[in-house]
Amino acid sequence: MINDSTICAVSTPPGIGGIAVIRVSGADAFAICDPLFVTGNSDKALACQSPNSVVYGFIHRDGQTLDDVLVTVFRAPHSYTGEDTVEISCHGSLYIQQQIMQLLIENGARQARPGEFTLRAFLNGKMDLSQAEAVADLIASTSSGMHRLAMNQMRGGFSTELKYLRTQLLDFCSLIELELDFSDHEDLAFADRSALRALAMKIQHRIEDLTESFTAGNAIKNGIPVAIIGKPNVGKSTLLNALLNEDRAIVSEIPGTTRDTIEETLYIQGQLFRFMDTAGLRDRATDPIEALGIQRSFEKAEKASIILYLFDLTQEEHDDIFPTSQWLQKFNKPILMVGTKNDIARRSPIHSAGNVQVIHVSCKEPADIERVKNYIMQLSNVQKVSDNDVIITNVRHFEALCRADEAIGRVLEGLDTNLPADLLAQDIRECLHYLGEITGGEIASDEILGNIFTKFCIGK
Amino acid sequence: MINDSTICAVSTPPGIGGIAVIRVSGADAFAICDPLFVTGNSDKALACQSPNSVVYGFIHRDGQTLDDVLVTVFRAPHSYTGEDTVEISCHGSLYIQQQIMQLLIENGARQARPGEFTLRAFLNGKMDLSQAEAVADLIASTSSGMHRLAMNQMRGGFSTELKYLRTQLLDFCSLIELELDFSDHEDLAFADRSALRALAMKIQHRIEDLTESFTAGNAIKNGIPVAIIGKPNVGKSTLLNALLNEDRAIVSEIPGTTRDTIEETLYIQGQLFRFMDTAGLRDRATDPIEALGIQRSFEKAEKASIILYLFDLTQEEHDDIFPTSQWLQKFNKPILMVGTKNDIARRSPIHSAGNVQVIHVSCKEPADIERVKNYIMQLSNVQKVSDNDVIITNVRHFEALCRADEAIGRVLEGLDTNLPADLLAQDIRECLHYLGEITGGEIASDEILGNIFTKFCIGK
Repeated sequence: MINDSTICAVSTPPGIGGIAVIRVSGADAFAICDPLFVTGNSDKALACQSPNSVVYGFIHRDGQTLDDVLVTVFRAPHSYTGEDTVEISCHGSLYIQQQIMQLLIENGARQARPGEFTLRAFLNGKMDLSQAEAVADLIASTSSGMHRLAMNQMRGGFSTELKYLRTQLLDFCSLIELELDFSDHEDLAFADRSALRALAMKIQHRIEDLTESFTAGNAIKNGIPVAIIGKPNVGKSTLLNALLNEDRAIVSEIPGTTRDTIEETLYIQGQLFRFMDTAGLRDRATDPIEALGIQRSFEKAEKASIILYLFDLTQEEHDDIFPTSQWLQKFNKPILMVGTKNDIARRSPIHSAGNVQVIHVSCKEPADIERVKNYIMQLSNVQKVSDNDVIITNVRHFEALCRADEAIGRVLEGLDTNLPADLLAQDIRECLHYLGEITGGEIASDEILGNIFTKFCIGK
Repeated sequence: MINDSTICAVSTPPGIGGIAVIRVSGADAFAICDPLFVTGNSDKALACQSPNSVVYGFIHRDGQTLDDVLVTVFRAPHSYTGEDTVEISCHGSLYIQQQIMQLLIENGARQARPGEFTLRAFLNGKMDLSQAEAVADLIASTSSGMHRLAMNQMRGGFSTELKYLRTQLLDFCSLIELELDFSDHEDLAFADRSALRALAMKIQHRIEDLTESFTAGNAIKNGIPVAIIGKPNVGKSTLLNALLNEDRAIVSEIPGTTRDTIEETLYIQGQLFRFMDTAGLRDRATDPIEALGIQRSFEKAEKASIILYLFDLTQEEHDDIFPTSQWLQKFNKPILMVGTKNDIARRSPIHSAGNVQVIHVSCKEPADIERVKNYIMQLSNVQKVSDNDVIITNVRHFEALCRADEAIGRVLEGLDTNLPADLLAQDIRECLHYLGEITGGEIASDEILGNIFTKFCIGK
């Protein structure tokens, strides 16, 4: 992972635009860029330019001007990567971008791998691993919620606190390991067991707060799953299309059209939702493909955080849907029953079924669609997540925390049962390891780093 | 066109990337950006930062950090537009890009129209109109030829020379117009007619050089047209696919499959070619659609700069193709006859037919496809265009030059026939007008500017 080559990449989005920025970072950044760059009004080498200054000039190739550029010089350690860095702002033509990259590579730079600039920032101590991961999340964020979580994490978020708790735990671990050196003195205890227990409980508590926040964090990051279920031909695809305002699902009058589960995402008031349109729930599906579709409906309802159950107001009345409402409550999730085709219904209104809220809509009525959206937003309980809550959104962090939780649980158990110091130390070490994995520290393996940084875009 | 609002736009390519650059230009650029921007280690206002310097800081929204950014300050007139300019380099998340744009607009900036930064550069005298147009060509350039022409034009190219010739002509025009004030003195001539004739001839000569270069320039910019013609089922689509290395055209064993003309572009050694695959040439096409296809073959051969005539080596020998080679030469263009299906042919080789070069290929053989490409490159004569030739690539320039040419022709005719000074002045004015249209000068109308700059991308 660590090598001292100088890397280069187009850091702006791929494609054609007004300008593009090519970033060069590494010990030879100035030496590689200097021969290409001819300044308009100074013949100072890049290394002699004031740091954080912008110089206007030309990139030459074979004695011809390839482009007018602005070059910004950053000097180590005062750059994103912590290395000498040159940023070349050129015209955003694909040809120019490619040619400058080729010139840099000919002069000794290497095309950066995805996330390699951020990897170097991590390796040079500019940020910890969870902050580095937040950079990728920040770039990928498309909603205010996602952006807020990524920004919190990038600013230090929970990793500062974890590092502090980890340091305290490490001190105890050292003391316990010291006891092992004096193992012939059986009663000798350098580490205050009750203070250790207090710390372990504090860590356990914090870890559990964080792991619990993962569901909310994941919902914000990947969307809150909403299952749309109901009998065939009640208008599930029609409602989904109306919500999405486009024709993604095939709408037809033949019952059971939607065989495959369709997933669509939609922002409601800045929060991402994932809508799963499923095959109709039919009492007796003779068609095996249809039966599979129904099976999926149940599975999706189980996976969803919110269930929308649709029924046809022209076909069913309160007594017809009441048993279903009872059955739905077994899922123990927020449920909304939506009576469809309200524009052609001639029945008396139903306001609830059991404890389940019922609303009547016509998918042709924009105000009704807005009402459905508002109910979904209410049921999602997103507002419960406060701005200052630290929330886990990263599966890797979640897994590491779960393992750290198991280990700290064993530490507490060991304290209860007076576990020998060597076994206790082993559990503490394991907890330290998993906590350390989150922020990187000295224990990030090449494999972990590889997995993390290949998810980045090139040029960051 | 001209207004004093401060404009902003994302100048990097649209999409997600490591970084994005948002450009703000106008009298209020500093005042608009200052309230959003919190610097890390200095509370200097942007207007007080050293020009051409990069400042690290944060963009805040509602007291929360929206992003870490680098801000570059350019002070009028030393910026691209000639106005005060702030460039905000932020993380390349779509959400962040949108939010910063929204903040800028809330603070009084206006979203820039396509090319509006360059329009301001033109209006502020940073470049003439043909240079401004070259910026768009430079950004769109995808080959070395296109890039070289755009870069020449952006660096001044022929417009400096035209401006000089125009100034000289303008002096003559003033003198002739002065004669009109003394029109009772019939013999008075302030303007030396023989010097005027010499200048007019020089201008005519230069204009004609430039208009002649348009065909070459257009070929470099839009691709050299190559017609692929031949009888049905000789493998025209197969050859085109092999050249393009993909399955764009439908290849079938039924003669006359390719009804519609297919156009595909391909770079050979950095030069763009446009390949037109046309319907088979059949002696008697009974199907009217097929007949139309043949009609198009002839038309395309006439429009093309290079003709590839394909014939089937398993079906035809030298004597069969000789009459065709005679007929092809009437087009008076570079021609290559390509015998196909060489892998299954059992006939004696043909090296030429009449004066036309013949090669044998199998489309399954990559080396043969390379050979075809090399022949096409040779026939294109692209190398005739030297690096220093000034070449017209812009239709607007071409049209203006053609009209200027007509006008200067009338000036010369008028000198021959001793046309009265007022009529002569009118023709000179017309020539001046069309020459001035190319570089902009004082006579660019809002309509011309509108047409030119709407072709730009946003943010340039």
